[in-house]
Amino acid sequence: MSVNAMSVGTDAGLLAPTWAGTPAAAQMTDEAWLQAMLDAEVALARAQHAVGLTPAAAVEAIASAADAERLDLVALAHAARAAANPVVALVPAFTEVVAAKDPAAAEYVHRGSTSQDILDSAAMLVARRVLDLIATDLERVAAALAALADTHRRTVLAGRTLAQHAVPTTFGLKAAGWLRLVTDALTRVRAVASALPAQLGGAAGTLAAYCEYAVLDGGVRADGGVELLAPFASALGLAEPALPWHTVRTPIAELGSVLQLVTGALGKFALDVETLSRTEIGEVSEPAAAGRGASSAMPQKRNPALATLIVSAARQVPAHALVLAQCLLAEDERPAGAWHAEWQPLREALRLAGGAAHTAVELAEGLLVHPERMRANLELTGGAIVTERLTVALAPALGKARAKKLLTAASAEAADTGRPLREVLSAHPDLSARFTPAQLSDLLDPAHYTGAADALIDRALHAYEYKATSPDAGGHANDGGTR
Amino acid sequence: MSVNAMSVGTDAGLLAPTWAGTPAAAQMTDEAWLQAMLDAEVALARAQHAVGLTPAAAVEAIASAADAERLDLVALAHAARAAANPVVALVPAFTEVVAAKDPAAAEYVHRGSTSQDILDSAAMLVARRVLDLIATDLERVAAALAALADTHRRTVLAGRTLAQHAVPTTFGLKAAGWLRLVTDALTRVRAVASALPAQLGGAAGTLAAYCEYAVLDGGVRADGGVELLAPFASALGLAEPALPWHTVRTPIAELGSVLQLVTGALGKFALDVETLSRTEIGEVSEPAAAGRGASSAMPQKRNPALATLIVSAARQVPAHALVLAQCLLAEDERPAGAWHAEWQPLREALRLAGGAAHTAVELAEGLLVHPERMRANLELTGGAIVTERLTVALAPALGKARAKKLLTAASAEAADTGRPLREVLSAHPDLSARFTPAQLSDLLDPAHYTGAADALIDRALHAYEYKATSPDAGGHANDGGTR
Amino acid sequence: MSVNAMSVGTDAGLLAPTWAGTPAAAQMTDEAWLQAMLDAEVALARAQHAVGLTPAAAVEAIASAADAERLDLVALAHAARAAANPVVALVPAFTEVVAAKDPAAAEYVHRGSTSQDILDSAAMLVARRVLDLIATDLERVAAALAALADTHRRTVLAGRTLAQHAVPTTFGLKAAGWLRLVTDALTRVRAVASALPAQLGGAAGTLAAYCEYAVLDGGVRADGGVELLAPFASALGLAEPALPWHTVRTPIAELGSVLQLVTGALGKFALDVETLSRTEIGEVSEPAAAGRGASSAMPQKRNPALATLIVSAARQVPAHALVLAQCLLAEDERPAGAWHAEWQPLREALRLAGGAAHTAVELAEGLLVHPERMRANLELTGGAIVTERLTVALAPALGKARAKKLLTAASAEAADTGRPLREVLSAHPDLSARFTPAQLSDLLDPAHYTGAADALIDRALHAYEYKATSPDAGGHANDGGTR
Amino acid sequence: MSVNAMSVGTDAGLLAPTWAGTPAAAQMTDEAWLQAMLDAEVALARAQHAVGLTPAAAVEAIASAADAERLDLVALAHAARAAANPVVALVPAFTEVVAAKDPAAAEYVHRGSTSQDILDSAAMLVARRVLDLIATDLERVAAALAALADTHRRTVLAGRTLAQHAVPTTFGLKAAGWLRLVTDALTRVRAVASALPAQLGGAAGTLAAYCEYAVLDGGVRADGGVELLAPFASALGLAEPALPWHTVRTPIAELGSVLQLVTGALGKFALDVETLSRTEIGEVSEPAAAGRGASSAMPQKRNPALATLIVSAARQVPAHALVLAQCLLAEDERPAGAWHAEWQPLREALRLAGGAAHTAVELAEGLLVHPERMRANLELTGGAIVTERLTVALAPALGKARAKKLLTAASAEAADTGRPLREVLSAHPDLSARFTPAQLSDLLDPAHYTGAADALIDRALHAYEYKATSPDAGGHANDGGTR
Repeated sequence: MSVNAMSVGTDAGLLAPTWAGTPAAAQMTDEAWLQAMLDAEVALARAQHAVGLTPAAAVEAIASAADAERLDLVALAHAARAAANPVVALVPAFTEVVAAKDPAAAEYVHRGSTSQDILDSAAMLVARRVLDLIATDLERVAAALAALADTHRRTVLAGRTLAQHAVPTTFGLKAAGWLRLVTDALTRVRAVASALPAQLGGAAGTLAAYCEYAVLDGGVRADGGVELLAPFASALGLAEPALPWHTVRTPIAELGSVLQLVTGALGKFALDVETLSRTEIGEVSEPAAAGRGASSAMPQKRNPALATLIVSAARQVPAHALVLAQCLLAEDERPAGAWHAEWQPLREALRLAGGAAHTAVELAEGLLVHPERMRANLELTGGAIVTERLTVALAPALGKARAKKLLTAASAEAADTGRPLREVLSAHPDLSARFTPAQLSDLLDPAHYTGAADALIDRALHAYEYKATSPDAGGHANDGGTR
Repeated sequence: MSVNAMSVGTDAGLLAPTWAGTPAAAQMTDEAWLQAMLDAEVALARAQHAVGLTPAAAVEAIASAADAERLDLVALAHAARAAANPVVALVPAFTEVVAAKDPAAAEYVHRGSTSQDILDSAAMLVARRVLDLIATDLERVAAALAALADTHRRTVLAGRTLAQHAVPTTFGLKAAGWLRLVTDALTRVRAVASALPAQLGGAAGTLAAYCEYAVLDGGVRADGGVELLAPFASALGLAEPALPWHTVRTPIAELGSVLQLVTGALGKFALDVETLSRTEIGEVSEPAAAGRGASSAMPQKRNPALATLIVSAARQVPAHALVLAQCLLAEDERPAGAWHAEWQPLREALRLAGGAAHTAVELAEGLLVHPERMRANLELTGGAIVTERLTVALAPALGKARAKKLLTAASAEAADTGRPLREVLSAHPDLSARFTPAQLSDLLDPAHYTGAADALIDRALHAYEYKATSPDAGGHANDGGTR
Repeated sequence: MSVNAMSVGTDAGLLAPTWAGTPAAAQMTDEAWLQAMLDAEVALARAQHAVGLTPAAAVEAIASAADAERLDLVALAHAARAAANPVVALVPAFTEVVAAKDPAAAEYVHRGSTSQDILDSAAMLVARRVLDLIATDLERVAAALAALADTHRRTVLAGRTLAQHAVPTTFGLKAAGWLRLVTDALTRVRAVASALPAQLGGAAGTLAAYCEYAVLDGGVRADGGVELLAPFASALGLAEPALPWHTVRTPIAELGSVLQLVTGALGKFALDVETLSRTEIGEVSEPAAAGRGASSAMPQKRNPALATLIVSAARQVPAHALVLAQCLLAEDERPAGAWHAEWQPLREALRLAGGAAHTAVELAEGLLVHPERMRANLELTGGAIVTERLTVALAPALGKARAKKLLTAASAEAADTGRPLREVLSAHPDLSARFTPAQLSDLLDPAHYTGAADALIDRALHAYEYKATSPDAGGHANDGGTR
Repeated sequence: MSVNAMSVGTDAGLLAPTWAGTPAAAQMTDEAWLQAMLDAEVALARAQHAVGLTPAAAVEAIASAADAERLDLVALAHAARAAANPVVALVPAFTEVVAAKDPAAAEYVHRGSTSQDILDSAAMLVARRVLDLIATDLERVAAALAALADTHRRTVLAGRTLAQHAVPTTFGLKAAGWLRLVTDALTRVRAVASALPAQLGGAAGTLAAYCEYAVLDGGVRADGGVELLAPFASALGLAEPALPWHTVRTPIAELGSVLQLVTGALGKFALDVETLSRTEIGEVSEPAAAGRGASSAMPQKRNPALATLIVSAARQVPAHALVLAQCLLAEDERPAGAWHAEWQPLREALRLAGGAAHTAVELAEGLLVHPERMRANLELTGGAIVTERLTVALAPALGKARAKKLLTAASAEAADTGRPLREVLSAHPDLSARFTPAQLSDLLDPAHYTGAADALIDRALHAYEYKATSPDAGGHANDGGTR
């Protein structure tokens, strides 16, 4: 193994502004993972003590020695190449630290254990910490989106499909869709977080060496290794596993799935922000902050930087989730590569999702909405955005098919001649004969064609269990009569 | 658009033996999807009738016309290029079929609807059908694996990690691990299947045209489109959506996640079968069948063909799931490409998972286990497989670290000289001084070092709610004394 | 194996409008693959004849029998499950067809061969056919884009970065970028196509059975199997392999890479078309055609359907390429799953790329460009799009940093007050002191700030070896003096 | 932006033992990337000087200030969140460092430039460095594999397909297959490395600000920005781009493709090493080294740690390549997320491939081959491994089909009864009638059925331009007569 001193850098996130400096990043450093491995070693000693084995003094010594700063992280990382995982080198190094405090306690370090028990448990521990951060951030995002949905119930804008104006919708309903995605993600985050299991199986998942030590220490019966599962999991704040899961990788695959759901949900929100903030559209803006969205070249720029950070995460996480899903294909009792391929994708997916959630709080809470631009854009096509409605209105007289044909032709004429569709239609005998100018004007008003948007917002808010936080925000509940 | 008659082939699965000819494949043909789209159109008419709109006679006419065989599938597929989805061409074609039966009914076809309502609902319908097939097959796989776990509680074999013998385990525990994966997958399949929502939103998700027709038909109030959601979903046997989910693609992402969990779980089982049936290992064989596992060249071949089919699926589905997850990033009210990119991956993932589950039934129910080969392989290393146990046994006298060092050296000596480790150890003063030959022989017996395997099997069977199906299979419960 | 008659459908591409009915689709049907396998069997007989083995009459009989229509495709597809590949069942079925013509010839069918030789060679054959179609289509796309680049050298529009106006560019340069991508893809397509190798290795890649038959038939020396490589490859129109590549899967991985380059290159073009054709932007439109871009609900819609088809392919192909790349990890002399996982992704990637290229011809050749909308959009920000230029102009006087600060403040003021930036700047003493109104007007004209766009277009056209096809298109070559 | 001091860790590769401490890792640290960005700024100043603009003194000041250690890396990484890329914050920070040395020079920093010019050029620079390392390592791997192929021409072992013995092959041919993959990868690495282009385009790819400064500085004509391309690329040791490629991402996609080819090629080699070193197979071993392949639990373990490191990389890189390929879909002149999503996958893919290549040198150069185990394994099936050959031998008498049937039955009988196939066959009248015992013994000798293996090895060595490095290794050339 070639060790190159220059190979060690600072993990500052220079190329990952989505998570650089965020709380999730702090849980994903090499140092944090190393500490989590030590936490797992301590939990093991505590669990063995709990079932009557390891003496209290040894547990105490192990716990007080379990500080990542006492170990040479870089040396461990390089030594990990020899065994293809960091725990093999960690055990003697940590044992030495314990022995320096209490030689007798050293015998109780990693007692009966195997690398994967420590590393998998550490992974669940740090994953749990990041999922908890994500849940907290998603709650704030959801609250902000719910408020937007409620506030902008009657803010009409163009619904867009295949990049074209379709029919009107409301910004409230748009926000309700984002809310729905975020609450879906939040539900899954909570479910997965609470089920993350500790790992304990020993060399090949039979708990055999734990059992041997139990017999040796005179505490428990020969197959009693299972008694360790509950106290070990409890010491880590993780779920008790039904079985060792060295090659039963559901928890890993589920983590991948939930993380891509998080970034996908936030990514949809961010992608819409990018679109709506296009120079020509201008219907929303990101919250302003000093330097935010600046360019190195162009003084006028206000780039949607928060949305960009989120979208960039959403484009990466599914690939990490794929690697994790493929690691279900793990041969034997521990695979030669599939397990080892999980660690970096898991770390990166966790911090990307954590960074995206952190970023989305700022975006959702600060989003600026420009109803006047929405209204102006609705007018761009001179009424074409409500041709669907006119088709319906004409259907009884002309039949659905002929009505659609008439409107298709009128739309094409308006597009070709540059005349507003409104004008073309007013001049059309099939319409002038049937509708008064006032009726036609009403039919052509986008604000009058938002369907069940309001009721749908209520459904989304209800599913989220929304409580309006101010009298104004919730006022709509009392003014149904005006709608 | 260039239409080339030769471009239409038979979808027989020539390149997909995992699903060729299986029940899941039958649900995934172009014909089945087309029928499901028609089913969605019928469900819409029924729902509109249920809320007092479309007359019963029209519903009847629409339902009786809704037979995919009445439509020109190939023409529709080619015409789909013009609008980038097949529903735009389907609507007039289907309307014509209805009109031929009942011209008045034609007005009620696709009333207020949009392509995505029909296609998404159809997708959920066929997905539901395949998930139900998968659940049924997974139940059979789980039952067979549970029986294997129970039957082979005391069938000892080499636990293997990083492709090397590690410590002994039991075939029962191995099967319990497979069982755990399959029950994890089954739990998620059921949860996802029961939550698959119908899609109803209209052109931009506001239900506006449905509302307009409702007003027009004199039935319901202007924002009453939401009243259609429950009867529409019910007519399809799908869940009622909280909101239109045209760009709230959780259901699609979840489908991808659950399908990769299915093939990953089965793939782990199949991968282990492949390994264990290697010529040199020979511990299991696939069930025999005429022609099964044959080669075009080598008469002696008995290839693990079932396992190969399953593994090949497990290598493909995560990539489809990734495309589906990325489609969460769907701009606006309907994206220009992200929605369209879902259909083929969803279809292929569903039929691969369906085919894999179908195949796994045969593999799990027919798997041949060769305990004598397991025993013979355990002996290959002359006792090295239990050196971990010896380390524990020597730890009180020598300390853990020195004990491990001693065993490492003895293992290396055995490997270098070709002498059985047993012999090397018997001659070692540190061991001969401490253990009688009988004690050493006991310590070196792999069958005596399976830890908590038995108790872990019980936990897995308990979680699965296993009921032994024969007195023999369950007999172990009464003979604990002999263990 | 359960055979379900309903499982066989029509492969019309109902869910894949990108390729439905295109020439590439015709090469990817089950029938076309089956025929290619038969073509490989014929090529083998021809090659064996060429080196003095199989008699001419047998070759003749084999060749005349090699018609996929004589075989029961569905039965073969279902039978493929037994051996996990279709060739094992194909050989006896085809042998029977040959025997019916010429019993003696039947002995020469698949002589010395193995399933993978036939299936891999067939795959290369159909891949070659589709790559040739793609190359032809990419040539047309490139020609159309080159013409756009040349024609629109001076068509100024807003350059956009992070969804915001940045600085001006020209539509010609934009087209030149698309051209560059397409020529990159075309170069790789040609290189990969011409290197696609025939596969010939026999059961484990030693050519042993071919050699045995050679000795038996009295033709060649014992290790002479290599003599078959050249005539076999030549009979198929493929490259001669250096070695059998049963588990040397470079050709498969390279195919994946080149196909994702094709759809990625075309996808960038299509994505830009989608953006530029947004209702609010309106700078390009897709070519009109009856029914093109229609909606099932909205009469006014002109969706960018061609671009959507291309983008949907570009979102899928990288996932297929990933599966192909991972199949490099193929154990032994033939893997138990990795090979089998290649077939469907390869087929789908080929037809998606083929369909995308076919679609892109229509899009590139028919694209409608709206310079007046480009000009109008440039004006939207009242000059902000050239603030970078003003920074440069002010730099000598103020220094770069202060100049940028001044422009940042002025841009913010214009954005906040709604006044055109032009006005804000004219009123600013730092500018009015330094520039005459005419100078300022010139500095603020987007058309005067397109940098080296013209020269860059020339570089792109030169790299493509562009020949202007009409006097008008090429006219720029003579008017350099006016630039 | 929340800045959390704890979020900054050490980038030691604790979870990535494939690259921890390797030379490639040293090129991929945040520090190395930051330095490369500064190198790009220096190259820009040099290029501007070369075309007569920036004065020599300014270049000198910029170059001497361009040391990453003078900048606060962590602050830059955190500040990068504001603009979604690190260059926007880097420019004023670096300008300040320059200004402290030479205030006049500060005006020439980043002159006319844009973030993407700097970051893309830096990415190509570090990619180039890692590709060069990879090429050097692949050369050593290829040399070692070529020597193995040559040395083990006559080392016979079981060819294995679908995890079962197939027909004999030679270890030399197996090594030749690995060699072929490695030379394929090496060829592509060199091609891609030499084509990696510098990036220079300015804010929207027109080079406009570069041109403006050129005019201002009195040096060149208005569209002369293209003159910078060659000296800029040359100063970086990169290829000159035809066009700015801000959204022409072929170089990025190609990098992904070549990196997955590298890890896939090495991964196939490593996967075979894992299989062949299985306890039951034992045909190769990894080179021994202190601590290599150790377990934290099991003293006897000699895990294939090097192979595991390589395989774990091969399972990750295709996912990174997928993200890079999808970034071809980059809208406008700079996308809002697609560009930003490239950086981490590119970094990780580069260091995983670099680490894998570094690891493979040790594995290939030190691989231990055990011909006696190969021979013993060949005997395991009592001759079944050459039934294909017997089929050929019997074909003239019985016909191919009947011969295969006979051998299939005999193989089954041997498998069922446990008798060696040799015995079963000797007793069979169809064979005893046709072959003398000596002939049968010869037919059944695996070493006599290796086909063209030797000639194929020569082809592979020839393609690699192998020169035997010792008289022994090359000796085979003179002893053809004995074969």
